[in-house]
Formats: sequence, structure tokens, C-alpha cells
Amino acid sequence: MDGKHFLRHLFLFFSALLLLVFTLQNLPPAKKTDLLDCAASSWRCSTSKNGFQSQTHGVLKNPAKSTEHREDDTPRHPLDPLTVRELNGVRDAVRSYGPFRTAPYALHYVTLEEPEKRAVLSWIPGSPLPPRRASVVARAGGVVHELTVDVGTGEVTRHETGRHFGSPMLTMEDMVAAVAAPLASAAFNRTVVQRGVDLADLACLPVSSGWYERKIEDKRRLIKVQCYSMEGTANFYMRPIEGLTVLIDLDTQEVLEISDEGKTIPVPKAANTEYRYSNRNVGVRAVELNLKPISIEQPMGPSFTVDGHLVRWANWEFHVKPDPRAGVIVSRAMVRDPVTGEMRSVMYKGFTSELFVPYMDPSDAWYFKTYMDAGEYGFGLQAMPLDPLNDCPRNAYYMDAVFNAADGTPYVRSDMICIFESYAGDVGWRHSECPITGMNIREVRPKVTLVVRMAASVANYDYIVDWEFQNDGLIRIKVGLSGILMVKGTPYLNMNQVNEEEYLYGTLLSENVIGVIHDHYVTFYLDMDTDGTDNSFVKVNLKKERTSPGDSPRRSYMKAIRNVAKTEKDAQIKLKLHDPSEFHVVNPNKRTRVGNPAGYKIVPAGTAASLLDHDDPPQIRAAFTDNQIWVTPYNQSEQFAGGTYVYQSHGDDTLAVWSERDREIENKDIVVWYTLGFHHVPCQEDFPIMPTVTSSFDIKPVNFFESNPILGIAPNQEKDLPVCKVVASA
Amino acid sequence: MDGKHFLRHLFLFFSALLLLVFTLQNLPPAKKTDLLDCAASSWRCSTSKNGFQSQTHGVLKNPAKSTEHREDDTPRHPLDPLTVRELNGVRDAVRSYGPFRTAPYALHYVTLEEPEKRAVLSWIPGSPLPPRRASVVARAGGVVHELTVDVGTGEVTRHETGRHFGSPMLTMEDMVAAVAAPLASAAFNRTVVQRGVDLADLACLPVSSGWYERKIEDKRRLIKVQCYSMEGTANFYMRPIEGLTVLIDLDTQEVLEISDEGKTIPVPKAANTEYRYSNRNVGVRAVELNLKPISIEQPMGPSFTVDGHLVRWANWEFHVKPDPRAGVIVSRAMVRDPVTGEMRSVMYKGFTSELFVPYMDPSDAWYFKTYMDAGEYGFGLQAMPLDPLNDCPRNAYYMDAVFNAADGTPYVRSDMICIFESYAGDVGWRHSECPITGMNIREVRPKVTLVVRMAASVANYDYIVDWEFQNDGLIRIKVGLSGILMVKGTPYLNMNQVNEEEYLYGTLLSENVIGVIHDHYVTFYLDMDTDGTDNSFVKVNLKKERTSPGDSPRRSYMKAIRNVAKTEKDAQIKLKLHDPSEFHVVNPNKRTRVGNPAGYKIVPAGTAASLLDHDDPPQIRAAFTDNQIWVTPYNQSEQFAGGTYVYQSHGDDTLAVWSERDREIENKDIVVWYTLGFHHVPCQEDFPIMPTVTSSFDIKPVNFFESNPILGIAPNQEKDLPVCKVVASA
Repeated sequence: MDGKHFLRHLFLFFSALLLLVFTLQNLPPAKKTDLLDCAASSWRCSTSKNGFQSQTHGVLKNPAKSTEHREDDTPRHPLDPLTVRELNGVRDAVRSYGPFRTAPYALHYVTLEEPEKRAVLSWIPGSPLPPRRASVVARAGGVVHELTVDVGTGEVTRHETGRHFGSPMLTMEDMVAAVAAPLASAAFNRTVVQRGVDLADLACLPVSSGWYERKIEDKRRLIKVQCYSMEGTANFYMRPIEGLTVLIDLDTQEVLEISDEGKTIPVPKAANTEYRYSNRNVGVRAVELNLKPISIEQPMGPSFTVDGHLVRWANWEFHVKPDPRAGVIVSRAMVRDPVTGEMRSVMYKGFTSELFVPYMDPSDAWYFKTYMDAGEYGFGLQAMPLDPLNDCPRNAYYMDAVFNAADGTPYVRSDMICIFESYAGDVGWRHSECPITGMNIREVRPKVTLVVRMAASVANYDYIVDWEFQNDGLIRIKVGLSGILMVKGTPYLNMNQVNEEEYLYGTLLSENVIGVIHDHYVTFYLDMDTDGTDNSFVKVNLKKERTSPGDSPRRSYMKAIRNVAKTEKDAQIKLKLHDPSEFHVVNPNKRTRVGNPAGYKIVPAGTAASLLDHDDPPQIRAAFTDNQIWVTPYNQSEQFAGGTYVYQSHGDDTLAVWSERDREIENKDIVVWYTLGFHHVPCQEDFPIMPTVTSSFDIKPVNFFESNPILGIAPNQEKDLPVCKVVASA
Repeated sequence: MDGKHFLRHLFLFFSALLLLVFTLQNLPPAKKTDLLDCAASSWRCSTSKNGFQSQTHGVLKNPAKSTEHREDDTPRHPLDPLTVRELNGVRDAVRSYGPFRTAPYALHYVTLEEPEKRAVLSWIPGSPLPPRRASVVARAGGVVHELTVDVGTGEVTRHETGRHFGSPMLTMEDMVAAVAAPLASAAFNRTVVQRGVDLADLACLPVSSGWYERKIEDKRRLIKVQCYSMEGTANFYMRPIEGLTVLIDLDTQEVLEISDEGKTIPVPKAANTEYRYSNRNVGVRAVELNLKPISIEQPMGPSFTVDGHLVRWANWEFHVKPDPRAGVIVSRAMVRDPVTGEMRSVMYKGFTSELFVPYMDPSDAWYFKTYMDAGEYGFGLQAMPLDPLNDCPRNAYYMDAVFNAADGTPYVRSDMICIFESYAGDVGWRHSECPITGMNIREVRPKVTLVVRMAASVANYDYIVDWEFQNDGLIRIKVGLSGILMVKGTPYLNMNQVNEEEYLYGTLLSENVIGVIHDHYVTFYLDMDTDGTDNSFVKVNLKKERTSPGDSPRRSYMKAIRNVAKTEKDAQIKLKLHDPSEFHVVNPNKRTRVGNPAGYKIVPAGTAASLLDHDDPPQIRAAFTDNQIWVTPYNQSEQFAGGTYVYQSHGDDTLAVWSERDREIENKDIVVWYTLGFHHVPCQEDFPIMPTVTSSFDIKPVNFFESNPILGIAPNQEKDLPVCKVVASA
């Protein structure tokens, strides 16, 4: 470590320490040491397993994960993420590479540069992997550098500088430094104290400041910091120091501006805000619901296997890996054909490409809250270790992530992804004969699915992202919203104090607390390879058709009209309930026995659409939410719907811009983009922590199989089910 | 039994026998005796438990159902359905009542005439029940009679004749007689043989013929019968004798018309149509998915109790009962307030009010297929016994129904409803702190729900209806579609034989088989009593609002505007994605601590809307699907959205007609109607039996509770979960 590096680290370490000193005041003593574990705080961690890991994994089984794998550091599949060893090599390669040898730098995004699709498709298991390359997005000297590092040789084989407005996603170090920065300002500290908050009770959050056509935004990397009181509660989010916003230069940690428009607004009380079970006697009302133990049990173990990152279950095989930006990446999803036995391709790659979370309050302390969580904060970086038995049921397999600190040093985010089989008591298919046919038939098959889950805690909000595989060939992509609201302080204690003409931008949730209205958009990248690489996008429009007089006693019926999208603009889809369509991705070159093109369809749900104006800066940056569905030709540089550099972006590199080129998409390698949308008008039930709200969309076979692919599965029988008893200690 | 009754029974018995003789040919010998069990064929059954019952319930536990209850015949709650004893009394009362003493008659719908809401609300458990009354819809002498029978005295206290066009729902005896009727026609039998089908292989279905403004439809009760070949398969639905339609007079069983427009269309082959597991070696390809046993286990038993028809679970209490027309009726749904401990009303009564299933083919043999399954066939009558371990998981409680034959004799439909707790591994709420705040928090609560399920097999189609109660106060109402498609024969073997300009009205699923496009609409009656009887319906419209220049760097935001619906027309809701609203049912007289009106909201999903023209006869009859949401003032005679008499109705008594009166609905006892819609363009995966497709909508608390009502529930811990092992025999 050279001098500049050391100074940088020293600064970060002190910033972090400062923050910790403040934040530790109100935590129970037993918890203090945990804060230095890798699971909770990443910036000083190396490759060794953390305290949490050893505390819980000794007790809990991880049945599908072999011990060898946990120690194994060798990639086995062309798409496997960079290992600890490989990341160490990349770190060394970068720090000894020309421009980085002397200047301070930060590595914002280090990932496997995936081999070309051809190479992946032609790779045979057991044969050597295609050359391993790392893609590195770094900042040095105020400039964005894109590097490719040959992992085998340690050589930098490509070096370009960023071509668009905007910056790479924040590093954890950026965020930690930002929240500590205001404390260097005496003016800030005075204001906090004047608002009745002890500096020892301060908790601050780094809020991406967006882009609002101001000059300073093109010259500096900026962030806004807002603070809360954690006195008497771990749920400081419910205690905002309203209206106090500090503008920070992310590179210098300089305080550029302090805005305080909330001097008359009290900090809401801590009462009723606690949610931790261990503190239930303090703050949580103990609601006795008298629920007896219930569990998904598999005494013979799960039916899936995990080989490195390759998952096999029932008729499915796919590759899954963590990514600091995208969260979970599912690749090479293939399903077994029940007739031929062959594995047939469904999707080459799918992931959460970007999020957009605009708050609907244009006032000084709120207008800029228009988060793009993946490109700004790292959706994967914010995915914390899952809580066994609560985040995922028994028999779940937990997969770790390996991410990198800003200096390139890898660390392990343990248990970031879980994989489990789910059975909710639902029905895969059924039929009973009714008495009129005289047949005594009752055939029912239970429905079991495989879930791949992660949960990102982007500050207050928690996003639970599920990829759920059904053995009938359907993939359900589900997003659950939970966590804690972003609330606004107000002088009001009761709605009867509010004049009828006054608008609160949200709901009064508790005394002095408004839950501000906002939207959530989660945009998925789906490189569909339906039964092969070349696909077409077909809109099956359902139209009312009038019968001719005398032709039929019916006057109308609904007709399905197929339209193949020729170019991108044909596939810019705004969903319409009263002019409905199905959206098929077909392989026009593969037909079923009776001549239908093999296809999958996108089945929309969670269809809330952004109402913001097209000329509003946040909507320009998030123009990928202008349509619910888009289709683009495959292009390696078009993976992130909001652009490669989303932080303070101008919207010049979004899906909407790419799609306007109107390229041909018929019978080509195409990518489908789907946006799940939620309007969220908060209600008191969301206080102080929100019951999960879930939405999902499906990727569903449509004439992909010759017939129902789960015709042959067996019904449940008593003799196959486990015998269970209560544990002695319970 | 007097002479006319005896003759009627003799005729029905012979018709049934005739049908059985034909249908029994192709069934495995062991099954033949089962056909005479009550579970499978109702018309000759009495109150004793059937063969199925004793075969399976000896083995399977029904842990929450006590043996006493199964023998108990005393109503305990004002809303409890009529018991066997009570139904016997009603039968006796009717047959000794004036006009019914001599003329033949049929009882189409016998149910409890529920006491007035006031009486139910003021009833105290343990005190005597309000007077028990039966509502009887009968036909005699070609006229519809509505009777009220005082169950205590056996007196008929009300007698009116039907006031609208249309007839009551078919009796099972109607259906059985109808499908046997064509066999009396030599011309029909000749045609069948000419089409290559042995009469011994014939299976026929009774298809409601709708109303198409023809005179004969007002003079007679009509039905159309279409037939299939069951040679070589139990799945005769896939082997239509296409184009052969027989018009039958339901009262005389006279063959009025034989239409045969399909002479050149071959009957599709039996190959690949079998779905029964016991016949898997014959027809079903055995797909080895290698799934190990998986089960929802509750070694300490379920957490709910069932007392007669009253269910208690976690913070919920509600009454559930079977109904021959509506299926499942949920009443008096109340949730415990976590602060005060009191039970607070959510919904007084909810049920499946009507279905509408129009097929989208205007040709002779298809145009009339526009089913209204509840009012025509009886949604509850068609709900067959559930299959333990497959329709519902272990530890489910099974509830029987008591229905009546046409002569009034009660019979038991065993296991018609199941109640169980579901845990899919999902999350009730969660939050992790991310490293930047320095807190090591990971609080997650598992999500357990209570499901009330029935499955109606309306001939080919299976509807799985779930009422799912969550302990956060949400009720999810879910409809799953499975079963078998209604298909059309065609000469085509492959799509390459079809000219581009030819339209098939569906998808070629297999050689000679077209799955015809259709819709499903399921309309729910929801008498919401949100925290009391008097409620208002509030549209919370989300509108784009432009900021004034200079006021904010933002140019737009989304604003929530509350509009209270004054009259019915204000609450005729066509959902619009790009002009969204929330739909609240609030008690304007009850406010939370901070002054929000206590409310529940209707959260739409499954939003397909009918595209049929408003002047099309089926759409006139099903005009209740013109909007997705309607709100009406409570009116005891307005419970069935398609009208009281749906069979051959003219649409003069639908929800759409009632709503046009535009009555006041503000701060009144109101009923909300929601329609779940599905467009179904069949695909090959639906052949020969359909994987379940599910849609649901929610009733969700919105400022009903002061805060998150499940804040205090405990996380799962290893020590609480069961220890399970594989059964020795497995």
C-alpha cells in the first residue's frame, strides 16, 4: 500500500470510526462488537468468514452446499463470478497499471466480463473455461476509467474513459464518508443541537441528489445528507430532523450547502417506533396471535442441487450469481422437454436492471428523492445476509457473494442469496368429474416451486426479489416491498388541524409523521433465448369483432390478431386494459408438431405506470419507465436501463434513447425489458415498519411444449409424507 | 310419495340408469360401484356418509373437526346453513303445502333465509338463535315459486311467483335428464354412429343455451346437449363430435332440434389425452422430475379452530358455509384490534355472486356458450369433494355441505370446503440495516396465512376459489383456473394446412383439436362493513400535478385526490392504468388517533375487461361485467349480479340495471362488487389438462389500524420447528 492509499484508508477508517462512535451510543452493549463483522460492515473485511457465519451456520444446516465448495475458489462455469483469488489478482493488476500507480483511485464496479454468448453456448462442461476477464469501472483524477483485466495474465487489455454524463455507482466508502462529512461543519452541529437532538444520537443517510440541470452537477460528484435522531429507538427513520439537508462533495467530503427549512417542525417522538423483537418489551406491543409452529419440511432433503453456481431442480437448470449492481443474475435458464428429454433454452440472462423510486413532494428537502437504486447504490451491494428460517424456510441453500472494497480488496457477503423449494398447499393442476357424467374422477397434483431469493436493504426500504421456477415451465419474477418508510416531519398531530385546502403530499401516520407518496419501478432485463438465440416479438392483440347481421345470433366476439414487431418502436408497449394483448417471444424457426411457433409470453402484472411529465429531469433519467415493455436487439453495452453511469446522469444513455434508434428486432437475438410498477400511498399500517407488498410478472411457455409438461407428476400420498414431532425443548 | 312424484322419480332413475349404462362401459371395474356413492352422484343420496368418506377419513386426520360435530345436527349461529333435519322439515312442509300437494314440482334452491343484519349483529353467542327460516325457489306448473318456510313451525309464511324473465338454476336432475334425452331420438343415434362413435362410448354435456331474443326461449326451459366419445380415454372432452347440437326441452326432455354441421370433421383421437395417474402407463408419459417429499408440517396441530361454521385464527374470526349457488359464503369477518383487543368488523358477507364465461366463436355450435356458472349450474352444486393432501395440505380441516335433491331430500356433499394454514417461506415484514448506519439489525417475520378453499368442477373447467386471510388484516380472494379446455373439432392436422386469411377462433392444440378463445369473469359480492355498517366509497385518484416555474427543480409530481362517491354512478369503475386510483371503503364516523377515517381498500388485479358489445345478448345478461367495480346500497334482493333467475335471463335484473337507479351510497350500508377477469387464449400447454392459472384481488386495511398490526409477532427459531423423519415404508 503506497502513501496515498494509506492516507485514503486512514481517512475512511476515521470517518467510519467517528460514525460508529456516534451510532453505538444507543445500541445494547452485546451488539457493539458485531458491528465490526464483515456481514454488517464491509469496508475493512477480507476473505475470512465473519462472526455471524460461525454463530449461525454451526446450528443451521445448509444441506445442498458442500463444505468443499465453501472453501473452493475455482470457477467452474464460464459465467461464474470472480473469485476471491481472481479479485485479488485484479486488484494487484490495477494498482500496478500505468495511470493507477501514482494517483488515488477507487474501483466502483468489478465484475466478470462475461464471454461472448457463442463461447458460453458452445462450452462443454468439464472442458477448460473461456479466458477469464474482469470488467473494472474505476474513478481516478475525477475521470471514469473502464478497464478490462485479463485475469489469467494480470494484464490490462482495454482502457477507455467514460463516454456519458454521470458517474458509476457509489462505493460503500463513498457512503460512509458522506454521512460523516456534515459533522465537520460547526454550523451543522449547531443546527442539530438547536433542533433538540444530541449529536450522540445522530444517524445520517446519504441521499443521491439526482440531476436538475445545474452547472455544479456536471463539475462535482454530489450527495445530500439528511439526519435523524436515534434516541430511544433503532428506527431512527421515524425521527427525521425535517428540512435539514447538507450538500456534500463526494470526492472532497466538503460541505457545500446547508439548507434548513424545518426549524419549526419538531422531531417526531420515539414512542411506538421500535420493531426489534429483542426490544419488544420496550417499544413493541406484544400481540399474542397464538400461532403454533409451521414449517416446510423435507426429511429426505431438498430436490435441487447446487454445483458452484449451477442449479438443477426438477426439469430446470440455470446459473445464478450475485452481482454488486444487479443483485441476482440468472443465466442460461433451460427446461427439459418432457418428450425428447433435451434441455431447451428459455432465457440467456435475466436480472434487475434498474430501479426508479420518485417521491411525490416537490419541496426543498424532498424534490430530489428520485432514487435509481441499482445504478446509484448497487442493488447487490445493499443485499444483506439473509436471516435463516425467516427470510427463507428450512432446507434453504445459502449462496455467498464476493464483492470488492474501493481499493479492490475482495470481501465475502455471506448468505446473500437463498434457494429453496416452496409448497404453499396450492394445486398444479386438477380435475374432478361432476356427477352428470357419471365418472368418479378426482385427479389433483400439488404445486411445488423453486425460489431464488435476495433481499436488498437500500437504506430504509427492503426489496425482496424472487425468481420462482415452476415445473410447468413458468418463471415468476416477484418483488416484495417491506422495510421502513421515508417519512417527513410535520407540526401536525391530527388531521383535524389540517385545512381542507392544504395538501400534505402523503398521509399523516402518527403524530408529526407524514408518509410521503412515492412510486417504485423495478425494470428487468430479460435476454430471452426461446428455444434458441433468434427470436421474434409477437403482439397478440385481442380485438372486438362485430358479426355480420344474420351470420350469428351473437353480435360480437373477441378475436386474436398476431402482429410481429419488425423494429424497436413496434415493441414500445404501454399496457391498456381495454385494448389488451398477449406478448409472445417466439422462435419463428422452431415449430411444434402441429405447427405453432415455440414461444414464451410475458404476462404483465404490477402495472403501475409513471405519471411524471416527460420533461421532468427525473423522468428523463428514468425514461425506461415510459413504457412497461420494450424490446431491443442484443447489444452487450445495453444492460442497464438507466445507462451505465446513472449517478447524476442526464438521461442520454437510457433504454428509451437506445430504443429510439428503431433497430430491427425480427428473428434476431432480442432482449425484452419489463417494468414492475407500484404506486405507494402510505397508510398507518405501514408505520413503523411495512407489511410486505408483493407484485410479480410471469414468463410463461406458450406452445413451447407439445402439451402440459407436468402431466406425469405423481399425486401426494400419505405414505410419502414425513412424520414430525415437536422438539423436546419447545 | 304420491303417484306423480313416484313417476317423476322413476323417470329420473331410468334416465340416470341409462346414462350410467353407457358411461360405465369404459371405466375400470373397481370404480363402478363408487358411482352410486353420494360423493359422486347426488340424486339418490340421503344423509349417511358415503364410501369415499369412510375410505379416506379413516386414514387422514381432520384434526380441527371433532367427531361430535360430524354427528351434530344443531345450528349454533344465526347464519349456519340449514341442517339435514331442517331440510327434511322444509321438504315435508313444501310437499304438504297447498299448490304443491298435487302438482309435480322441483326445489331448485333451498337455503337459509338469513335473519336481518340487525338481528345477527345483536345476537349473543349462547343465546337462542333468531327464528330459522328457509328460502325455497321451486318450479311447479311451469311457474317459479318463491317460498319462505318457518323451520320451527313448518309453515309456509311467504309465497310469491317469480317477477323476472329467466329460470332458477338447473337441478342435478335437470342435467342428468338432459344428457340422456337425445338417446331417445333415433335420428340422433344414427348420426352418432355415422360419425364413427359407438353409442356405448357416448358422453354428453348439458350446455346452457342462453337467450338470443327468440320466442321459444320465453315459452320453454331449453338446453343444448353436445356429445363426445370416451373411447380410449377418460378425457372425452378432447374428443368432440363437432357440430352436433341437440336442443332439448328441459321439462319434457323432448328433442326439439338436431343440428349437425360437423359431418366432415373427424372425432379427434384419444392419443395423449389421458391424465389419470392410475392410467399413466396407458396414456400419460411418465416425466421423472425426481421431487422428494415436501410438506407443510404442524406437529402441534393447526392454530385455528372451527366451531360449527365459525373459524377463529390468529386475529381473525369469521363464519364460513357452503351454498349450492354461491359456493362458499364468508360472513361476519372480524379482526382483532391489537391496541384495544376488540373484534372489529371488516366484511359482513362475501361470496362468488356470478360467473360469465363467453366463448369467442360465433358459429352454430359455439355462439351460445356464454356460461353463467353460478346462476345456471350452481357453483356450489358443482364443487366436488376435495382431494386430501393434493387439493389441500396436511392438517387441513374439511367441511361438508348439505344440499338438497329436487324433491327436497337433503344429501351430504362431503369435504366440499377445506381450511388450512399456508406457509410458503414468504416474509411478513423485514428490515436489515445496511453497513452505512453501522447498526447490526436483521429483523424478519415469516408470513403464515389461513386459506378457505373450494374447487368447483363446472363440467370441464375447474375453479379453485380461495379466501386467504393474512394476520396483517388483508384478505386475498383468489381464483385458480384448471381442469380441461372446451375444444372444437377441426379437419386440420397442422397449421401449415391453414390459409393465412382463415381464422380458427382459437389455437390448434393437437391434431384435429382447437382450443377456442374465451374469457372468465368471476364477480364477487362484498358487503363491506368496515368498522361498522355505515360506510362510504372513496376514490383516491392519482393525478399528475405540474409545479409552478421557479417553485421547485421538479416539473411534476403525483398528487392523491380524494373523492367520496355520492351515488351509485360515481362508483361505476372502469380501471385505467394511466389514470389510476385507490378504492377505499371507509367508515367516515370512525377515525384513527391522528384523524384518518378507518378504511379498507379494494386492490384490483386480474383486470381483464369484457370486449363484447353492449348490445350483444350475452353481454346484456352479463352487464355486471361492464365495470370492474360497482357499489350499491345494501338491498337484500340484490345478491346475484346476473339476477335472481339467470337461466335464459334477458338481463333485466342485473347489477348494471340496479346501479342505473343511481341511489345514494354515502355513509350507508353499502355493497362493493369486484370482477376478476381472465382472457384465455389457449396454448398447447393447456392440452390435455391445464396447469393452474391464478388471479386474485385484495381487501386491505388502510388506516384501519393505528399501526402495523403484526409488529409483535415472533420470528421463527430453530427450537420451535418440528423434527421430521421419512416414514419407514417410503
